[in-house]
Amino acid sequence: MTIENWRDEIDRVDGELLRLLNRRASLAVKVGAVKTGVGLPLCDPDREREVLTRVSNDNDGPLDDQAVVRIFRRIIYESRRAETRSHEAAQNNLQEVL
Amino acid sequence: MTIENWRDEIDRVDGELLRLLNRRASLAVKVGAVKTGVGLPLCDPDREREVLTRVSNDNDGPLDDQAVVRIFRRIIYESRRAETRSHEAAQNNLQEVL
Repeated sequence: MTIENWRDEIDRVDGELLRLLNRRASLAVKVGAVKTGVGLPLCDPDREREVLTRVSNDNDGPLDDQAVVRIFRRIIYESRRAETRSHEAAQNNLQEVL
Repeated sequence: MTIENWRDEIDRVDGELLRLLNRRASLAVKVGAVKTGVGLPLCDPDREREVLTRVSNDNDGPLDDQAVVRIFRRIIYESRRAETRSHEAAQNNLQEVL
């Protein structure tokens, strides 16, 4: 295998990561819609800790646990941003209708 | 579907993301070993730009492009950290043998 072969494989993995990151964000948007519908805050520190503990416990490397936690913290932050944007868009649509 | 169902699905996606993140890091470690073997630096800004441009172009949302770039910048950074640690471990092993 050459560097180019491995880079092609990394590109394939990145494509799969991108698909899953957006799948995760779309699920988070659905959870966020239910939560705001019943007046719950979008931010849930207990759930965030649960997610970070699980991925850290399940980690076999070569990324170390701190790296995995830092990446997932970023993923959770961006998923929540997608939830917030979706909620704001829904509210703006509602105001236009009213 | 309830919040719990969606969270179970998010947990499954997270497990798959974790697997792929470590797969990516192990490929990056291989690329890094070849690069250091021929005296090339581990950091390659052109390749990093290429990766970020590709995932940004391929992004269909709901994450926006800036979010995707921020997540992948973190993934690249942590992959490179795994490369550096692996390189340092190999050098230490070599020094112990010599």
